[in-house]
Amino acid sequence: MQHPSTAEAELARFAAELTGSDIPPEVLHQAKRSLVNIFATALAGSPEPAVDVTLRTMLPFCGQRGSSIVGRSERADAPLAAFVNAMSSNIHDFDDTHEATIIHPAATVFASLFAYAEAARLPGAAVLKAFVVGGEVECRIGNALSPYHYARGWHITSTCGVFGAAAAVGALVRLSPSQMLHAFSGAAVQASGLVEALGTMAKSVGMGGAARNGLLSALLAQNGLEGPPAPLTGERGFLRVYADNPKPEALIDGLGSEWEIAKNTYKPYPVGVVVNPIIDACLRLRAREALTLGDVAEVEVTGHPLLRQRTDRPNVKTGREGQVSTQHTIAIVLLRGRATLEEFTDAAATETLRAGRPTVVFHDEPGRNIASIDFLVRTRDGRELRETIETSLGSRGNPLSDAQLEQKLFDAAKLVGFKGDTRRLVDAIWHIEKAEDAGEIARLAAVVA
Amino acid sequence: MQHPSTAEAELARFAAELTGSDIPPEVLHQAKRSLVNIFATALAGSPEPAVDVTLRTMLPFCGQRGSSIVGRSERADAPLAAFVNAMSSNIHDFDDTHEATIIHPAATVFASLFAYAEAARLPGAAVLKAFVVGGEVECRIGNALSPYHYARGWHITSTCGVFGAAAAVGALVRLSPSQMLHAFSGAAVQASGLVEALGTMAKSVGMGGAARNGLLSALLAQNGLEGPPAPLTGERGFLRVYADNPKPEALIDGLGSEWEIAKNTYKPYPVGVVVNPIIDACLRLRAREALTLGDVAEVEVTGHPLLRQRTDRPNVKTGREGQVSTQHTIAIVLLRGRATLEEFTDAAATETLRAGRPTVVFHDEPGRNIASIDFLVRTRDGRELRETIETSLGSRGNPLSDAQLEQKLFDAAKLVGFKGDTRRLVDAIWHIEKAEDAGEIARLAAVVA
Repeated sequence: MQHPSTAEAELARFAAELTGSDIPPEVLHQAKRSLVNIFATALAGSPEPAVDVTLRTMLPFCGQRGSSIVGRSERADAPLAAFVNAMSSNIHDFDDTHEATIIHPAATVFASLFAYAEAARLPGAAVLKAFVVGGEVECRIGNALSPYHYARGWHITSTCGVFGAAAAVGALVRLSPSQMLHAFSGAAVQASGLVEALGTMAKSVGMGGAARNGLLSALLAQNGLEGPPAPLTGERGFLRVYADNPKPEALIDGLGSEWEIAKNTYKPYPVGVVVNPIIDACLRLRAREALTLGDVAEVEVTGHPLLRQRTDRPNVKTGREGQVSTQHTIAIVLLRGRATLEEFTDAAATETLRAGRPTVVFHDEPGRNIASIDFLVRTRDGRELRETIETSLGSRGNPLSDAQLEQKLFDAAKLVGFKGDTRRLVDAIWHIEKAEDAGEIARLAAVVA
Repeated sequence: MQHPSTAEAELARFAAELTGSDIPPEVLHQAKRSLVNIFATALAGSPEPAVDVTLRTMLPFCGQRGSSIVGRSERADAPLAAFVNAMSSNIHDFDDTHEATIIHPAATVFASLFAYAEAARLPGAAVLKAFVVGGEVECRIGNALSPYHYARGWHITSTCGVFGAAAAVGALVRLSPSQMLHAFSGAAVQASGLVEALGTMAKSVGMGGAARNGLLSALLAQNGLEGPPAPLTGERGFLRVYADNPKPEALIDGLGSEWEIAKNTYKPYPVGVVVNPIIDACLRLRAREALTLGDVAEVEVTGHPLLRQRTDRPNVKTGREGQVSTQHTIAIVLLRGRATLEEFTDAAATETLRAGRPTVVFHDEPGRNIASIDFLVRTRDGRELRETIETSLGSRGNPLSDAQLEQKLFDAAKLVGFKGDTRRLVDAIWHIEKAEDAGEIARLAAVVA
């Protein structure tokens, strides 16, 4: 083919032409870790009201029900299964995190891939490769938009997730490079999602739409969709409209040698990623100093500005909002000594509201890693207790082990009372490249009606 | 109910509580004019490749096929029918225009309404009222975002169209005020569309998605979807993310007394609305001065900056691009003496490319009405021919008559070889409030298989 003239054409060619043997083994292993983690969070999110509301609304508009829904007995066509599984897996913000962008890259990619692959009976090795492609495209587009895009108020996991799903399904159905570029156009005209909606069901509608629309963009491109020559880097293309000072070179720098998906991280706690070090600090102080909520007069936190911007929410009322509230999180962790999904229910939010959440003073330090904070508690009896978290548990410098990821999936299964064979599911994910039909994994994660 | 605390809550209450008798007769008549016009443009667009590609891709993912597709024999479920009819009706940019925002308000609203109403067998009077609601909400949100939003590169007809569809279907299914507000949240997290995609099939994917997603937002809200308290005016709500210096007061100023939908206009020519006065000027000079393309040495145009920004495209290759190219438009109108859809085909674009398009110098005049230009032709033999268009045909000051709108529908039917009863269709639209089942109109516009 002719030499690509734009960064997105080069990225599209990469996405279309990558083969499994081009991907280093450690990157493939990281992809499997992402899959173990995302099935865990999808299971955990599967009984949520947003999922019920969506299925009640959309099942009547559904073709042949060839695809499984994680943690549920309903089946759906591929677009609806993609929609719902992306919702579930991201609903608690307990899914994976690409630290440079704060994208949760796996949700839309895994959801669209398994939905399509199950219906079309495609092999696990093709799904694993396409998962790497989707994550790579999604995170690179996020890099090109950062930091402006998320700071302005875009829900970057949705806006970039639609590209991840398009690229992943595009790789799965073997789009040509030019078809892949047109799939990017389909994604670009459907990219949406607002930070304002975090903590509400509406966030999940954005996520579901991103997965479904990315999937459909790939299939539309397969059937002849055409878009503009430079949907991302054009004068009024996606990058310039969705960001001031975008970095188009980030789309392709080090492509094929530096893998964004290899930088993926996994959360130990079901909270906005910027809240992770808060929990580490509270757990340590509680253990070391026997600190209780009643002892606390005031807290000072120094961290990345996003910590303040996203989580300075002293008056939240719901568990969902509590996941992005530093004030609720400090209170509940000091009360209970743990941070599982049960600490972020509506009841837990009510509990800390009644008990009294601490006053928190935030200090912004723009250059700081988001996994790091300085934490200072002033107690009612005049002590100053300090804790510095350099790299919170689950961050790149302090990752969850494979065994901890497996345990996260078992914990999620237990939380929702999953009746399936969790051990078989975990093993099938670790050996996905051997599955002749990736749908086997999707069905292991669903509930037999 | 309690006093609404935000502008969008007040707009939602208006959308939920408006009754047919609240709407002045002249506004209802304007709504019918909009419907005649949008059925015309939907018929004209119905055989386009983007529609074929979409139906080929999406019909397999389709539930009960209770809804008609304008100009076609396929039937679809409501979301897909909404998707396709919104595409068709806007594909040539020949649909209605709200001049203050350059929104084409009817496309997503009519498409989602008829798709849902036909499947649910709802009466014409309810559809007519809901059409007014949808247009009103859509244009008011556009006013709140203008002029920044469209100038930045958002395809405002898509980004605001999703709200129009949500409000319209929300009114049709009788959402409560708080449900309507949540439907706005569903729309806000799905709002998308890029000017960069104009002239390509991808534009229409954005439009189709807006209609489908608006429809689904209303149904999700009916089933319990919840969003943030201030999805539009919140700190990181839709208005602040999608525009610098938004005007939230525009959402509600004069609500119920000043009707945005009454300001709707209809195009005599299938071009970007800013190109309309160019055609008027060329037709006049051709008639008065016997001006031919070969005579033209150079053209100078003074107009609204959007004329230059959107249509200074000297090298377009396709008919679709030609619709937003001043250079192609001048050339083809001087060659042929008319501006119908046949002047904006790929063949017509090739014809003007071969014949040589004139050099055009644009002068921006920011305060100028978009329906107005000063047009100066310098001829090869040294003459200077001037023409001023104050209010181009089809603009608010110079509207198409009811009879001209009917003729537009008959012309569209002829263009696509429509086999249905066009006279009955036109009469049914003018008397929509008498239809016990609005689906009768939708079926009259479809082709019996």
